[in-house]
Amino acid sequence: MKHKLAFVGFGVVGQGLGEILAGKKKYLKEKYDFDYDVVGICDMIKGSVMDENGIDLKDVLKKVKKTKKISDKKIEPVEMIKNTNADIIIEVTYTDLKTGEPAFTHMKTALENRKHVVTTNKGPIALKYKELKRIAEKNNVMLRFEGTVLSGTPSLNLSIEALAGVGISSVRGIVNGTTNYILTEMEKGRKYEDVLRKAQELGYAEADPRGDVEGWDAVGKAVILANTVLGGDLKINDVERKGITKITLRQVEAARDRGKKIKLLAKVWKEKDKVRASVKPEELPLTDFLANVSGVTNALTFETDSLGSVTIIGPGAGGMETGQALLNDMLAINRMVRA
Amino acid sequence: MKHKLAFVGFGVVGQGLGEILAGKKKYLKEKYDFDYDVVGICDMIKGSVMDENGIDLKDVLKKVKKTKKISDKKIEPVEMIKNTNADIIIEVTYTDLKTGEPAFTHMKTALENRKHVVTTNKGPIALKYKELKRIAEKNNVMLRFEGTVLSGTPSLNLSIEALAGVGISSVRGIVNGTTNYILTEMEKGRKYEDVLRKAQELGYAEADPRGDVEGWDAVGKAVILANTVLGGDLKINDVERKGITKITLRQVEAARDRGKKIKLLAKVWKEKDKVRASVKPEELPLTDFLANVSGVTNALTFETDSLGSVTIIGPGAGGMETGQALLNDMLAINRMVRA
Repeated sequence: MKHKLAFVGFGVVGQGLGEILAGKKKYLKEKYDFDYDVVGICDMIKGSVMDENGIDLKDVLKKVKKTKKISDKKIEPVEMIKNTNADIIIEVTYTDLKTGEPAFTHMKTALENRKHVVTTNKGPIALKYKELKRIAEKNNVMLRFEGTVLSGTPSLNLSIEALAGVGISSVRGIVNGTTNYILTEMEKGRKYEDVLRKAQELGYAEADPRGDVEGWDAVGKAVILANTVLGGDLKINDVERKGITKITLRQVEAARDRGKKIKLLAKVWKEKDKVRASVKPEELPLTDFLANVSGVTNALTFETDSLGSVTIIGPGAGGMETGQALLNDMLAINRMVRA
Repeated sequence: MKHKLAFVGFGVVGQGLGEILAGKKKYLKEKYDFDYDVVGICDMIKGSVMDENGIDLKDVLKKVKKTKKISDKKIEPVEMIKNTNADIIIEVTYTDLKTGEPAFTHMKTALENRKHVVTTNKGPIALKYKELKRIAEKNNVMLRFEGTVLSGTPSLNLSIEALAGVGISSVRGIVNGTTNYILTEMEKGRKYEDVLRKAQELGYAEADPRGDVEGWDAVGKAVILANTVLGGDLKINDVERKGITKITLRQVEAARDRGKKIKLLAKVWKEKDKVRASVKPEELPLTDFLANVSGVTNALTFETDSLGSVTIIGPGAGGMETGQALLNDMLAINRMVRA
């Protein structure tokens, strides 16, 4: 069926999805019976565009690439969400793990206006998943957020559908590419500070790298896994957290000499009736698949009742890769609405 | 919703599914709105039972465990399929990669009688997928076969749903646990013949091990991947095939000295407009995740357009593990029928 889409935010991820949608329009229609018009795009910096009859997505992408602008027109996200004829809102503004805003308000408004929401924004999902879920159910629309954990590498949707029927007792993994890149480079004998600087040059780490190296990004993902896969009700502060800032080259080399690797592991597990979570550096033997996950690659290992241990490995970031998560969520909505 | 299920075949896999269903009845109803009655079980050796009001599954499982019999009554599978009030037929008889029979006839009969089919039987899917698919579509029922490739480890359902939207250009992997066990043991300095004997003692290899060690089992799986994931139309004989029977300890050790491992790799890929497939031993560097997949564990790596490389690792056999694949397929049917 044909969907009307509106983007709230049009940064790297929004554009990544835009490129996929524009490039695969025919393929998506033929293979998945998924067709679309983009009827709105608003971005705080790049400007906005709305047209209920459809915008030329390729034109917008070309213009943004060239001029970094969509238009000089500014439309408030909440206004666009309320007034657009879109049935799916793509929320891809920035993540704020303290308040979840402004994305939380965008999602809430969309759901209350009976629009499905797909997002890669960790903030509202980590902080207020239960509330958003309730609003979505009340309004009979869907809220999907595959891209919040491993970008487009199947993680949440894997546990919802491809692992349906399995009882999952724990999930552990490498969910932050920046820190895994740093630890991998340190294995080659380079110091933390030097590698961090290089990661910043390559764009893997931000100017203020604390969100990654102190473990906050991974904590956000751990909370999402805990609350959505294991059914917990954790807050950010319930997660035991230790970053990699104090890992020394000597520790990395000592681990290597023991045949092990240090990884920043996010773990969520059931302990009696409670769901618990931690993010901290741990030494893994090389027989653990996670030990062999290098650089910016991410991975998750699910421990299950009927299937033993299942591991998925793939990219954890990137515009196209994260855009794919949004597309996958929209295809899921399409399957369910259509059926 | 409530489904009526009939088992055709009740060996290790059928019983594995039975154990899961019996153990999770409440959980499946609450979490997935999936409820069931088993209304028929027929097995060529163990006997049969039919009751359109429902059979006590736990009782049957207990009896089979104790006596290896269901009953003295013999019901022909085709008769049961025609006469049962089941809406889902679980086809778990033995695999015949030459004729696909008798499973092909069971599936065809079920689909023509407008019953969904879930199966782990490679024969009919590798040999006659297109024909079965046509019959299923014509009769507006579903044919699902997740367990034919990696048992319950997500493979086909991964590519259908969790990877929906991604263009997959190739799949390569370790899809046969027996040969991977043999090659892994040879890495420890043991000879092929000795390891094969041990694999037979452990039940990993059959008395006539040719189906595994000559690569036929992997070829069947490669054809299924080629035809269902890449949309090919391959026959068994279109697959380039080389088993592991001629791999010597010296070759394994020479590979190891080069920092590599020999694995029996199944590969399917697109070459221009054609889909191609091979099964043969290949040397992999240790940086390849597949090189680190040891023993009876299986794995697949998908090469994609928007997601780069995605690898899934998990069990590839076992009664419970393969039973999980059947449950997953039934939950997918339940989602679609219910929606």
